[in-house]
Amino acid sequence: MVELVEALNLESIRTAHQTIRPYVHRTPVLTNSWLNDACGASLFFKCENFQKIGAFKARGATNAVFSLDDEAARRGVATHSSGNHGAAVARAAKLRGVPAHIVMPSNSAKVKIRAVQAYGAEVVFCEPTEQSREFECAEVINKTGAIMIHSFENEHVIAGQGTAAMELLEDVPDLDVIMCPVGGGGLLSGTAIAAKSMRPEIKVIAVEPQNADDAAQSFHAGRRLVTEKKFTIADGLRTNIGEPNFPIIQRYVDDIVTVSEEAIVSAVRTIWETMKIVIEASSAVPYAAIAESKIDVVGKRIGIILTGGNIDLDALPWNCSRDD
Amino acid sequence: MVELVEALNLESIRTAHQTIRPYVHRTPVLTNSWLNDACGASLFFKCENFQKIGAFKARGATNAVFSLDDEAARRGVATHSSGNHGAAVARAAKLRGVPAHIVMPSNSAKVKIRAVQAYGAEVVFCEPTEQSREFECAEVINKTGAIMIHSFENEHVIAGQGTAAMELLEDVPDLDVIMCPVGGGGLLSGTAIAAKSMRPEIKVIAVEPQNADDAAQSFHAGRRLVTEKKFTIADGLRTNIGEPNFPIIQRYVDDIVTVSEEAIVSAVRTIWETMKIVIEASSAVPYAAIAESKIDVVGKRIGIILTGGNIDLDALPWNCSRDD
Repeated sequence: MVELVEALNLESIRTAHQTIRPYVHRTPVLTNSWLNDACGASLFFKCENFQKIGAFKARGATNAVFSLDDEAARRGVATHSSGNHGAAVARAAKLRGVPAHIVMPSNSAKVKIRAVQAYGAEVVFCEPTEQSREFECAEVINKTGAIMIHSFENEHVIAGQGTAAMELLEDVPDLDVIMCPVGGGGLLSGTAIAAKSMRPEIKVIAVEPQNADDAAQSFHAGRRLVTEKKFTIADGLRTNIGEPNFPIIQRYVDDIVTVSEEAIVSAVRTIWETMKIVIEASSAVPYAAIAESKIDVVGKRIGIILTGGNIDLDALPWNCSRDD
Repeated sequence: MVELVEALNLESIRTAHQTIRPYVHRTPVLTNSWLNDACGASLFFKCENFQKIGAFKARGATNAVFSLDDEAARRGVATHSSGNHGAAVARAAKLRGVPAHIVMPSNSAKVKIRAVQAYGAEVVFCEPTEQSREFECAEVINKTGAIMIHSFENEHVIAGQGTAAMELLEDVPDLDVIMCPVGGGGLLSGTAIAAKSMRPEIKVIAVEPQNADDAAQSFHAGRRLVTEKKFTIADGLRTNIGEPNFPIIQRYVDDIVTVSEEAIVSAVRTIWETMKIVIEASSAVPYAAIAESKIDVVGKRIGIILTGGNIDLDALPWNCSRDD
């Protein structure tokens, strides 16, 4: 099997864009003069919080489900996810008219479980551990013959996630820097391939919570490390970087920096207050790096992918982070 | 003096639009398929929460300040406001390079006081009563010779507020209904003149909290009533309808309906969760009327002005309303 770092290129992302176009939003790019003044740069926010299912995950999952040939698709699709990817796969399967089986930890938020069920998918519960998720998902696949749609190691998922950066660079071609958060590395892989292919001089900078800094450690060590994680409010970013994603990141990414929990919470609040948009904590991680002066942005044009807006309004970061 | 109902027309609003264009945003119109499905209508939200100073008030205040001749403008401007209008006047005065004096209740939120001061305006404190606000404002005007910019009874303020509806109808010309909240009636007056002039067959429906329903009572009684107010979470709408505004509303508005506090709180949350935008409680009042089935919307195309996004993130409606 060809490694994904060789298989994926701008053409994969353009094809994904054609595939998913009828099913996802072309999200707006917002700017804010207050934030620009505060950091001395021009920030361009690609608002995937306005995307279908409230997160960029709709792009990759839709591309993966619609890239299956008819015979494979009829078998149905499966994945494990406690968050947005599960809803995205369920929605894509419904649009394609095929079954979906979503393995979710039994302690998942009820609202997330209901969202998946509302798309007609079967929810299979597992223990809240990585091992249990993978085991239950393998069981489901054994039993049903469904096709696995991994949330960040899948080629078509990565190509789909790259369409956000592609659209951002179509709208704002002369960016100096593009930034996104990194968890498993699906979004970062797609973003980096799209950005470096469309504009080789661009700097691709990923940002990660200090409390889950395996990608930064791996990037600087030159080899993929699996590290122990502490709690982070940016719950979408607790995942270890994927094996097939790491070589892509090594080839296309310029730097990975980390940010404190305090900076993330403050960045969420600043963006809500100044931009009047609802973003989830993971979305705020790149701006947190700017606010914490982790990268030099003065005078530059910076693209930032705001990854999603699915947040529990009863447990806002500036309330609940103080419990830790 | 000619009454405002005779003085104001679509031409006033077009002139205002030309005047303020360099200084305010043309805000986007957002749609949401989930909300459309939920109510069986097509909703078009004019997002004044993304406006300069975070509210539509930037339009009217900017038009009023820039409509003064140079000699008058040099005298400076004054107003009383505990909210967005004060910031809007302060900003407009700064843009025009003239002094501004803003009378604010001594118990105003610190963030609002700082916002006004950040534009270089003088803040004059008063007791938190209508009488004290008016008295202190008159004192300031006596002392400084500044020109009063009333937040809803001023001709140029009303014309400026009408530009939001004008833009909405330019973007979505075939609306069946246009809705906005009503407090003092500045926005409603401008909205109604713009909408009925551009599209005579449109229905203009205003919405008011049940707990501050003087506009609805006055509208149905056919004469302006000053009523006692109970607490409403939609703090921008506690004001009594203005004297010069009432004849405009009688001429151009089709109905005024009221909504419960519970419906307002629920509507705020629904809009945050589904649209991923931050709106203040007053903004949610029209959608609350739809959610509470106070008006018949099925199959219709409904324009809704979301008035602003300035909300205290430490006192969200679904937390604090339960204290009452």
